[in-house]
Amino acid sequence: MTQSLAFSDPEREAVYRVIAERRDVRRGYIDQPLPEALLHRLLAAAHCAPSVGLMQPSRFIVIRDPVIRKTIHGLFESANAQAAASYTGNQREQYTSLKLEGILEAPQNLCVVCDPHSERGHKLGRQTMPETALYSTVCAIQNLWLAARAEGVGVGWVSILDPERLHEVLNIPAHLVLVAYLCIGYCDHFASAPDLERYGWEKRISLESVISYDRYSEAGTP
Amino acid sequence: MTQSLAFSDPEREAVYRVIAERRDVRRGYIDQPLPEALLHRLLAAAHCAPSVGLMQPSRFIVIRDPVIRKTIHGLFESANAQAAASYTGNQREQYTSLKLEGILEAPQNLCVVCDPHSERGHKLGRQTMPETALYSTVCAIQNLWLAARAEGVGVGWVSILDPERLHEVLNIPAHLVLVAYLCIGYCDHFASAPDLERYGWEKRISLESVISYDRYSEAGTP
Repeated sequence: MTQSLAFSDPEREAVYRVIAERRDVRRGYIDQPLPEALLHRLLAAAHCAPSVGLMQPSRFIVIRDPVIRKTIHGLFESANAQAAASYTGNQREQYTSLKLEGILEAPQNLCVVCDPHSERGHKLGRQTMPETALYSTVCAIQNLWLAARAEGVGVGWVSILDPERLHEVLNIPAHLVLVAYLCIGYCDHFASAPDLERYGWEKRISLESVISYDRYSEAGTP
Repeated sequence: MTQSLAFSDPEREAVYRVIAERRDVRRGYIDQPLPEALLHRLLAAAHCAPSVGLMQPSRFIVIRDPVIRKTIHGLFESANAQAAASYTGNQREQYTSLKLEGILEAPQNLCVVCDPHSERGHKLGRQTMPETALYSTVCAIQNLWLAARAEGVGVGWVSILDPERLHEVLNIPAHLVLVAYLCIGYCDHFASAPDLERYGWEKRISLESVISYDRYSEAGTP
């Protein structure tokens, strides 16, 4: 019932490497579908994520149909135009120059939804913090994202979409919550830094500025 | 600006191993504080998680003070008694027999909060799905959880706590959102299956039952 504790040094380094080199991929997708076995490994990595009360609320919709992806790309374009309109001047120009999704270029997309009111898990851990059901699904997504990087597969998270309209397009029942819409595929490179940093949209802040000890302190706040 | 694509087979296997062998640890913590350098590596792993618009909304409070941990353990006991009272008969007996936290046994706890309205990131990606700020913080937690497993360090997520009371104890400003309260420390073993499965609270469901293709389908639903 017990696993060996230790990871070897190279194993530990591989874990830190995948955490450091994971990127949000929006460009450079290769038009070659992932082998079924690989896609299955990625979904299995997601599925063995922690979940509150072992409720396992995550559901995965693999979207390969180009017609459906085209419809969803239309939803992105509409939400993105609205978002762009909220900026002015240089910032709007910069925003519209950013590439923020790869819905059509990535041969497969993955919509990840959560069943937050499932009886599975018998509400354990959800009475004071029911939002942990949704958080369980996010843990699954991060597992998949890391496994994908180790497989040389890019993942990009698109949040510029109207969840209600996505529900309609994908026939998702109203009681399920959209958590993420992901583009997934082989890609020709992984950038060495986040796109939004490389293109000057935002800077990375220091680790020290986000840590405090024993009680919350604004001291280091960025 | 580009990283080498490929992970070697052993590196890829290490990534899948850490994903499979991560556990929610509630018992078996060893009374030996983590070295500062190790704790720093774990927090750095969290800090390089993806964040919507590169907003980096996660803040980390490392709690080592035993008096503060004792106060928080009291919050757990109070919330847990209320939760236990919601069950009846055998289920209540089973619930109360479960060990659900290691707040006092783990020499360090970590409270992870999110600043969901930060101007950092200039709202990119948050106009249609503002909840992605909180999800960014969950990605950080999952990074830390996996890095910890590779270091032989156990992490347990405690959601049976009243967030408002925790805010008071840790002086957390009202505009920050509690995402997770974690117990962290060396531990004497990692179980081969989730505690809640081993003790018969819930079963794991099949991967096939949570996947559908192109549109949502109830077909495989567990």
